[in-house]
Amino acid sequence: MKFKIRTAKQEDCKEISRMIMDLAVYEKMPEQVKISHRELERDGFCHNPFFECLVAEVPEEHKSSQGHTTVGYALYFYTYSTWKGPSVFIEDLYVMPEYRGKGIGSSLMAKVAQVGKEKQCVRLQLSVLDWNTPSLDFYVRKGAQDLTASEGWHALRFDGEALDKLAAEAPKD
Amino acid sequence: MKFKIRTAKQEDCKEISRMIMDLAVYEKMPEQVKISHRELERDGFCHNPFFECLVAEVPEEHKSSQGHTTVGYALYFYTYSTWKGPSVFIEDLYVMPEYRGKGIGSSLMAKVAQVGKEKQCVRLQLSVLDWNTPSLDFYVRKGAQDLTASEGWHALRFDGEALDKLAAEAPKD
Repeated sequence: MKFKIRTAKQEDCKEISRMIMDLAVYEKMPEQVKISHRELERDGFCHNPFFECLVAEVPEEHKSSQGHTTVGYALYFYTYSTWKGPSVFIEDLYVMPEYRGKGIGSSLMAKVAQVGKEKQCVRLQLSVLDWNTPSLDFYVRKGAQDLTASEGWHALRFDGEALDKLAAEAPKD
Repeated sequence: MKFKIRTAKQEDCKEISRMIMDLAVYEKMPEQVKISHRELERDGFCHNPFFECLVAEVPEEHKSSQGHTTVGYALYFYTYSTWKGPSVFIEDLYVMPEYRGKGIGSSLMAKVAQVGKEKQCVRLQLSVLDWNTPSLDFYVRKGAQDLTASEGWHALRFDGEALDKLAAEAPKD
């Protein structure tokens, strides 16, 4: 099947938002999605955007059973390693179920790697849930190291009241 | 002891680079540090910087045994959650051993939280090595959730040949 990977435009945010929800359902946490296409439009298409995004498109004749031609996306941003320098981090990589197994996910990831290398990134990172073995296997097969398994890195998060409390403790200037 | 938290300037990069190496020694991977103050100066102080940084300073009369007055730093950048929106990620938080236990680490972290909230960030995240229990305990005591323990998130990385190979698979435009 023919498909095309291209940089997302602001008007793609509704379709991206739909797929963000699909992915959250797959990850068993749909009630956690608190932002809509409006926030994506604001945060990804401003002067200093928080993220960049690629979308995968199929021709009209291959549209989905619900009529969609945007069938996958990769949302990513730049991070920094104080040991190695600039890195690129893929927050979401998603392909609609009926379009899997056609190389679309691999192409999205490869394109992010290429864009990252153009920006001198020496690493591409992402996080995966340990029960999501199809994805874990997919990434490891492509050469990823599991840093949690090999080095013991744990992800920590402050949000809600814990974050408010932290910020309130900041010293006055 | 009096100390001050302030935004890092380009001329602080030599001191930050020294402490990055100290932290890598503590994390038992000093041979992994491949960048110097020159890369920090370039990557953190350009038009679209890859990171921001805070430093902790003590007065001259409290300088360290080696004569340093810059005694800690927090290096961070912005990330994005497709469920919640903008987040801030602390890559490194470090205080020189002889200055620990004085609230400098807490103040650095609190200041990052404050800066993040000013940018509408709803999360502050960081990664910790599982054997580094003093740090893990410090963060959890302050309200952090361990997402690797509670939800099973694993950190994956592509670099070197694996990243080159990925990028080479990108579809032609």
